[in-house]
Amino acid sequence: MSGSTFGRLFRVTNFGESHGPAIGCVIDGCPPGLPLAADDLQPDLDRRKPGTSRHVTQRRESDRVEILSGVFRGETTGTPIALLIRNEDQRSSDYDELVDTFRPGHADYAYWRKYGRRDPRGGGRSSARLTAPMVAAGAVAKKWLHAQYGTLVRGCMQQLGPIAVPFERWEDAATNPFFAPNAGIVAALEAHMDALRKRGDSCGARIRVVASGVPVGLGSPLYDKLDADIAYAMMGINAVKGVEIGAGFGAVTQLGSEHGDELLPEGFASNHAGGVLGGISTGQDLEVSIAVKPTSSIRLPRRSIDARNQAVTVATHGRHDPCVGIRATPIAEAMLALVLIDHALIHRAHCGDVRLDVPPIAAHARP
Amino acid sequence: MSGSTFGRLFRVTNFGESHGPAIGCVIDGCPPGLPLAADDLQPDLDRRKPGTSRHVTQRRESDRVEILSGVFRGETTGTPIALLIRNEDQRSSDYDELVDTFRPGHADYAYWRKYGRRDPRGGGRSSARLTAPMVAAGAVAKKWLHAQYGTLVRGCMQQLGPIAVPFERWEDAATNPFFAPNAGIVAALEAHMDALRKRGDSCGARIRVVASGVPVGLGSPLYDKLDADIAYAMMGINAVKGVEIGAGFGAVTQLGSEHGDELLPEGFASNHAGGVLGGISTGQDLEVSIAVKPTSSIRLPRRSIDARNQAVTVATHGRHDPCVGIRATPIAEAMLALVLIDHALIHRAHCGDVRLDVPPIAAHARP
Amino acid sequence: MSGSTFGRLFRVTNFGESHGPAIGCVIDGCPPGLPLAADDLQPDLDRRKPGTSRHVTQRRESDRVEILSGVFRGETTGTPIALLIRNEDQRSSDYDELVDTFRPGHADYAYWRKYGRRDPRGGGRSSARLTAPMVAAGAVAKKWLHAQYGTLVRGCMQQLGPIAVPFERWEDAATNPFFAPNAGIVAALEAHMDALRKRGDSCGARIRVVASGVPVGLGSPLYDKLDADIAYAMMGINAVKGVEIGAGFGAVTQLGSEHGDELLPEGFASNHAGGVLGGISTGQDLEVSIAVKPTSSIRLPRRSIDARNQAVTVATHGRHDPCVGIRATPIAEAMLALVLIDHALIHRAHCGDVRLDVPPIAAHARP
Amino acid sequence: MSGSTFGRLFRVTNFGESHGPAIGCVIDGCPPGLPLAADDLQPDLDRRKPGTSRHVTQRRESDRVEILSGVFRGETTGTPIALLIRNEDQRSSDYDELVDTFRPGHADYAYWRKYGRRDPRGGGRSSARLTAPMVAAGAVAKKWLHAQYGTLVRGCMQQLGPIAVPFERWEDAATNPFFAPNAGIVAALEAHMDALRKRGDSCGARIRVVASGVPVGLGSPLYDKLDADIAYAMMGINAVKGVEIGAGFGAVTQLGSEHGDELLPEGFASNHAGGVLGGISTGQDLEVSIAVKPTSSIRLPRRSIDARNQAVTVATHGRHDPCVGIRATPIAEAMLALVLIDHALIHRAHCGDVRLDVPPIAAHARP
Repeated sequence: MSGSTFGRLFRVTNFGESHGPAIGCVIDGCPPGLPLAADDLQPDLDRRKPGTSRHVTQRRESDRVEILSGVFRGETTGTPIALLIRNEDQRSSDYDELVDTFRPGHADYAYWRKYGRRDPRGGGRSSARLTAPMVAAGAVAKKWLHAQYGTLVRGCMQQLGPIAVPFERWEDAATNPFFAPNAGIVAALEAHMDALRKRGDSCGARIRVVASGVPVGLGSPLYDKLDADIAYAMMGINAVKGVEIGAGFGAVTQLGSEHGDELLPEGFASNHAGGVLGGISTGQDLEVSIAVKPTSSIRLPRRSIDARNQAVTVATHGRHDPCVGIRATPIAEAMLALVLIDHALIHRAHCGDVRLDVPPIAAHARP
Repeated sequence: MSGSTFGRLFRVTNFGESHGPAIGCVIDGCPPGLPLAADDLQPDLDRRKPGTSRHVTQRRESDRVEILSGVFRGETTGTPIALLIRNEDQRSSDYDELVDTFRPGHADYAYWRKYGRRDPRGGGRSSARLTAPMVAAGAVAKKWLHAQYGTLVRGCMQQLGPIAVPFERWEDAATNPFFAPNAGIVAALEAHMDALRKRGDSCGARIRVVASGVPVGLGSPLYDKLDADIAYAMMGINAVKGVEIGAGFGAVTQLGSEHGDELLPEGFASNHAGGVLGGISTGQDLEVSIAVKPTSSIRLPRRSIDARNQAVTVATHGRHDPCVGIRATPIAEAMLALVLIDHALIHRAHCGDVRLDVPPIAAHARP
Repeated sequence: MSGSTFGRLFRVTNFGESHGPAIGCVIDGCPPGLPLAADDLQPDLDRRKPGTSRHVTQRRESDRVEILSGVFRGETTGTPIALLIRNEDQRSSDYDELVDTFRPGHADYAYWRKYGRRDPRGGGRSSARLTAPMVAAGAVAKKWLHAQYGTLVRGCMQQLGPIAVPFERWEDAATNPFFAPNAGIVAALEAHMDALRKRGDSCGARIRVVASGVPVGLGSPLYDKLDADIAYAMMGINAVKGVEIGAGFGAVTQLGSEHGDELLPEGFASNHAGGVLGGISTGQDLEVSIAVKPTSSIRLPRRSIDARNQAVTVATHGRHDPCVGIRATPIAEAMLALVLIDHALIHRAHCGDVRLDVPPIAAHARP
Repeated sequence: MSGSTFGRLFRVTNFGESHGPAIGCVIDGCPPGLPLAADDLQPDLDRRKPGTSRHVTQRRESDRVEILSGVFRGETTGTPIALLIRNEDQRSSDYDELVDTFRPGHADYAYWRKYGRRDPRGGGRSSARLTAPMVAAGAVAKKWLHAQYGTLVRGCMQQLGPIAVPFERWEDAATNPFFAPNAGIVAALEAHMDALRKRGDSCGARIRVVASGVPVGLGSPLYDKLDADIAYAMMGINAVKGVEIGAGFGAVTQLGSEHGDELLPEGFASNHAGGVLGGISTGQDLEVSIAVKPTSSIRLPRRSIDARNQAVTVATHGRHDPCVGIRATPIAEAMLALVLIDHALIHRAHCGDVRLDVPPIAAHARP
């Protein structure tokens, strides 16, 4: 309601600013009895954290998370899990000149007009740094979903600026800083990023996230549709400008006889729907694709105004990701996991009694 | 929370099924003092209603709305506005054979597995008929937004199946059943639909919705971003598979130096952001585009299963829209208006005191 | 959030005014598969409805409820259940003189200052008439709770003005218009009410509500405590000024060694807690007691002001209950049932997996 | 929804356990521009903290609060304010024997059955220690309310066990550890507590909280009534068993001609309503009274069971308040302030445009 809490029954309340003393979140509604330690959260935090390659921001943060509550003797207790990450590498002086200047493509101007003030240090509350607690919360969700249903949430890069990244295998995505599921294309991606960085410009990306092993029946038929909540979660990630489920915009030119996935006793014949029909999960893989815009903080000079509506020129020299899409993969995974656990809890509240004799049919196996 | 209420402070709770006695909604949180009568809601309901051309379902519904509460002497009182629309043209017998059969591309299967039962008459709760109360509620929102800020919410068709619809003028959209903003292309659209209907197939569409005159400052920086809520609202419309804000997926191949909208004392130099930055409205036009999948109910026979996982063949002979995208325009407008009024109320709750001496800059004028 | 929805997962959204065309509610979140018909709701509506004895308002309303949605072939479908009750006996002319006058003890003045306008007909939205849909929704909750856990929610009068009503047996409460669980005292209550009505005055009452067969474990330890939600529900009933759980204000003078209920292998030794400890149900009877103030609408003349702050004299001649407490019993039962079903759903969302080998101990049997 | 967030637009999410590393809260929705520092929160925290006299628990906590976010250059930014309080004096070994034993009158048993596990150290999540962050959040609310409307929220003791505490003056409440508004009675209270402590028993208390300078118009007419939310807030405080607004249970024996507060051009003639009518604030003082049960942790041996339903004897030797009511005063003040700021924000969202020419009448001046 006030904009810093995500979810309905599995609720994550986020706090902090890019250059304040700490960031973190409170997870309320995690079921009791889940084995949990900081080590469960660290791997995803490490995948997201800055400074891991020359292609991302060089800010140095260890992003070590402290669990302040909600875990007793190695298991969740059912009460709020508070997570704390101290900021370590603030260079607020980078931003002194920006206090009264609005960077094109940034939240600066809208933010200042909304609140009548803003914290210019590293984007303050608008910084992508605030996705770190989301990723930690997402790791809790992933662990529960996997324990409960065998659900697997995975993401990868589909396109970097003009370079399409054909999917080869999930394993490859873990071997390069781009989360490219195709080891053979990494050299081209690196060359592209090096040239871009040299020019002081930035580029966009397209990211794919998939959840497999999703139980059938999650989501509501009218407003809190599973796909609507996924769209909300994805569009809420910094710099995202588009969201697709399944065939997405490709559905515009499909025929009905082509798009509708046939059901066979042995399983679905295709998955153009991307795992959701009428707002409810079908048991097929959830297929989500998002567009990430090019980073707004670039070295190239751009025209803008200051807080007195006077013309200025802005060039950003702080430490920034030349493509925010690169680090978006673990964030998008986390958000998908958060949507799923929330719907799983809501579903068992309302339909916990429903029993059917016939088992669900198999998902279509995508290569 | 339970899936039938939209919004936080301007809340619309929807009820009804396609072939039940009535559909409707309760609008809670409308500010007092807005002049309101059923006649304010009817025009948008008429734009959405079935049977208005040969290109949409031939179901005959007058969709007359009755205001049951919340209005006294022609003005809203601040208390809930209940809207009731009686269903008139139920032909439930059309659906008898479908009780135990799942139509490919429909919610049937997922719905049945979720609830252990379903109302097969016209899709029951999954029917696009339930968008009628949304459209009525959206008309209330539109009226308030226009009175308060001069906001204008308009939509039109961008593409019908393979046929792109170049934007000519808003006025044209009111003159044809496709909401095509281009009178010259209507004949081609009609020919396409006639051929499709003859074949018993269906097609997708792309719809554009724009809000102009949006105040700067709506939305929250982290989770309840204005664009996230728009994505939620749009993806929640029946058959929508993709949502874009501003440049959308086009941002993937843009450079940062190209995408970021420059600010000049006389106004924004472009609007690739589509009116939102960092989750907060910039005062520019909100530019939204959605992908609508082809209708799943088609006459062509398709493979499916029944409730015992036995193979069946399904061909749908009820009355259906061969392109659900055609009637999606007023629905998408309504959803955008509902998001905006909700954020306008939340904004004045939190930031009602904020005063700035400098006026906002002008929006970029899109041709 | 906007004030007309009760509950979190079992949500009841209420609409209507005392003298508008209709009142009703939308129940969202009822689990599927509950057998339900209008006849299940009517008995409680009849217990609450006006005109059933000379001791309550003589307004004539049949309070017949129509189920508009959410039930298919005699069972709930899991989708919203809309309930509609048409108002039949509006005498708005009774209120013409009141438009600009504020009745002492009524919401009139505060309401007018809040909204800048008000519907004076029968109290508009502030009327106790709006409890009818609550009672209908409560009947749905009662039926589900009884089917699921054997829960029984019952209420009775404890005191009418100065007359204490010693508890004799539940059966008696069904045999008199006061819901007095003591047939022997009814003559005294009638005499008291007759004298009061003659004088044109009104009196208060104390009502007791009990839920037995409540599962252990409902409620949250910090904010959404079961007893906090009960207090919210009860204080929200028209004219209620006080709420007690278990020993209530009597606990102020108890010693710890007296108040704390001992646990024995064969069951609890007492129930001073009233069925809740630390915000969580213990499996004991929920014991709630409420204070209902005397009706504000009385024939005796009282000093007041009009909308221009001018002194006036007000005497109310419409049809009113000389003791609103008399009809409060079925309302309080309904509210308690609504709190319980909501917490039951939330509980199984979060703790649906919890299994213990040892059975709960028995509740203390109150005579 | 998940039980650890209080409020709708001014939202406080609480975390922590009595003997974990830290407790705290995240305040989301505080308007921007409020001057704020840790020193604003400390005075109320110090009034609540343990160890300040021999009549309360001897646990030693400095309860120093750290502001982690949401404040920039001494003012709130409009983004979440995270507050952290490290626990310093954990003596978890006090509780080793309690792991499998349920203390009568405590949440232990219900908690364990709900979650299938519990953190026995100091009551874990059920500890009154979790009220510290509430008190800190309440201090933020108090400061904003006072700056905005001149609202003053004050509390005092009304009764300690059998000893009534006649109100003399607010100033006295600040001069003794009982918050007794009557310096002359303090010696009697001390003697009572000393005797009780010696016997190893505990007693209850009645606390009064008053808000003056409350704007007229806060609250909703049906469910989110101001008094209903106050009842929710108060009953949610540890050990509270009863809540009264205005005349409270005294209204049961009042006549309508006595209870209804007359309105005169110069102001209200009385305040039996306690500042709320029809769920909406009247502009009069909000008068709230609560019953606090005797502490359940006492040295006297009591019968109970263990986790195998075996009979045991329990005597509590940890550090405990012999009357939890003593420290309840600042907590109740905080909760009342939190309800008021939340309703103030909601009110200006919905009714921010309402303007009336006639000023509100004065509140009745209570001696």
